[in-house]
Amino acid sequence: MSQLRLITFSDAEGARPGLMLEGGRVLDLAAAGVRFATMQALIEAGPFVVPALRSLAEAPPEAALLDAAAVTLLAPIPRPHRNVFCVGRNYMDHVAEGDRTRGITNSELPKYPQFFTKAPDTVIAPHAEIPSHADVTKYLDYEAELTLVIGTAGRDIAREDSLKHVFGWTIANDVTGRDLQRRHGQWFKGKSLDRSCPLGPWIIPAADLDASDLAIKLWINGEQRQSSRTSKMIFDVPEIISQLSQGFTLLPGDVIMTGTPEGVGYAMVPPRILTTGDMVEIEIEGIGRLDNPVGA
Amino acid sequence: MSQLRLITFSDAEGARPGLMLEGGRVLDLAAAGVRFATMQALIEAGPFVVPALRSLAEAPPEAALLDAAAVTLLAPIPRPHRNVFCVGRNYMDHVAEGDRTRGITNSELPKYPQFFTKAPDTVIAPHAEIPSHADVTKYLDYEAELTLVIGTAGRDIAREDSLKHVFGWTIANDVTGRDLQRRHGQWFKGKSLDRSCPLGPWIIPAADLDASDLAIKLWINGEQRQSSRTSKMIFDVPEIISQLSQGFTLLPGDVIMTGTPEGVGYAMVPPRILTTGDMVEIEIEGIGRLDNPVGA
Repeated sequence: MSQLRLITFSDAEGARPGLMLEGGRVLDLAAAGVRFATMQALIEAGPFVVPALRSLAEAPPEAALLDAAAVTLLAPIPRPHRNVFCVGRNYMDHVAEGDRTRGITNSELPKYPQFFTKAPDTVIAPHAEIPSHADVTKYLDYEAELTLVIGTAGRDIAREDSLKHVFGWTIANDVTGRDLQRRHGQWFKGKSLDRSCPLGPWIIPAADLDASDLAIKLWINGEQRQSSRTSKMIFDVPEIISQLSQGFTLLPGDVIMTGTPEGVGYAMVPPRILTTGDMVEIEIEGIGRLDNPVGA
Repeated sequence: MSQLRLITFSDAEGARPGLMLEGGRVLDLAAAGVRFATMQALIEAGPFVVPALRSLAEAPPEAALLDAAAVTLLAPIPRPHRNVFCVGRNYMDHVAEGDRTRGITNSELPKYPQFFTKAPDTVIAPHAEIPSHADVTKYLDYEAELTLVIGTAGRDIAREDSLKHVFGWTIANDVTGRDLQRRHGQWFKGKSLDRSCPLGPWIIPAADLDASDLAIKLWINGEQRQSSRTSKMIFDVPEIISQLSQGFTLLPGDVIMTGTPEGVGYAMVPPRILTTGDMVEIEIEGIGRLDNPVGA
């Protein structure tokens, strides 16, 4: 079974969902008769869609194929229907490096996941520029994160049922203004600068990937900064979904970022800051690569 | 000049924007030829709309008048286009009462506003039931808050320009699970239980109300719990808008809650908890009254 890669792309006919096939070809779903205006609509239609897409990918109609080089890849969900959910301090070595910047040497494990959000409009496409935000933050930083998309609504979801609610997996960069994050106490301000959420390059359906132990890596200008495995999360994906959903209904199309491992720039000695001209590349095993330059 | 009260209401013909007039009459805007499907669309159309509505309210066409008792009042923005923005610890006496619950007696003023969010789907209508959430929180609590709606997009907004971006004023109740708020560290989880954001009853346009020094009060079952003035905010509305917009674009239809004064149930000795059958009533001078019962 080959892996499906669900994308949102645009060309002269506008933005719409598609499949990234092997060999640099894009399958235009609408042209193949699968007419969802957006990835959100596709996800909301229900779990029957993915097997239908799989059949289509196995025998793609020639007339629905486009050259990948001729289209623009957008974030798979270009503008989530509400804020992106995030979990902070979810890898022990990242907790420890953050504590060190505050002079704390005996780090404790968080007892509960720390949820915060990024505005939906912060999402940007693969290859799109992250602004340097030099006028508002002196410490712009990166965070590579395994990211999931909810497929089926649910509330008070039990740990053991959690993965049934996952539509698929993607990658995000939780770009952060560290000084803003710290001084405002609650993290929203430092986490929600314009264009601070590169997302993509595509969604791998849940059936096509076990995300419980994947290599996750990040490079700045080719220099490796982060390298860990998703198995090192303090609260794993089932726990995140279960806890977030207590008394709170998760909805199709919700985007949930699962935290970043150690190696952020702010915790390096001396701190390293994202600046204009930097290239950020993230790779998660079994998903792909998300790269974004830092602009002016 | 009489004050405009912009509502969203529903009847057999569906939900749509209107005006609440004196004498228990509702002006159905669509029936009067002002055809915005939603309050969001009305706000996005631009500042010219409010004067047009004022003219209409002064000579309402008889055929567009409905009996207020025959329609259902919804939240003025029933489902904001992204998470509701909130500011925590924004009245000194509320900071102090919160600190006391943690054994801190010498409270310090926050140096920067603490921004967090509530999911847009938590918004409920005036008179609608707040769930007791007894299965997920032992400390359900209320918070009366002056709330503003953004009319004109902006980023890096200077303090002195801030109020030009306000479309109008309303009331919200930032219903909170105190134990969840505390144990998750970041406040999103405790602040975003389903149906935890009563909003309304209407929006008063910015031109019709100076909100800088209004009485704000809350009662539980007729017992007064909160009584303060909006002039006592630590970060006033211009400061909130200016700081939130640094590096982050505010958009028409954004809902911003400005923090609650002292008198929350959790800080009482012994703590008082919202329970099934309670009636929460909030009044802000010059805006109106928002009341919601606590359900099962």
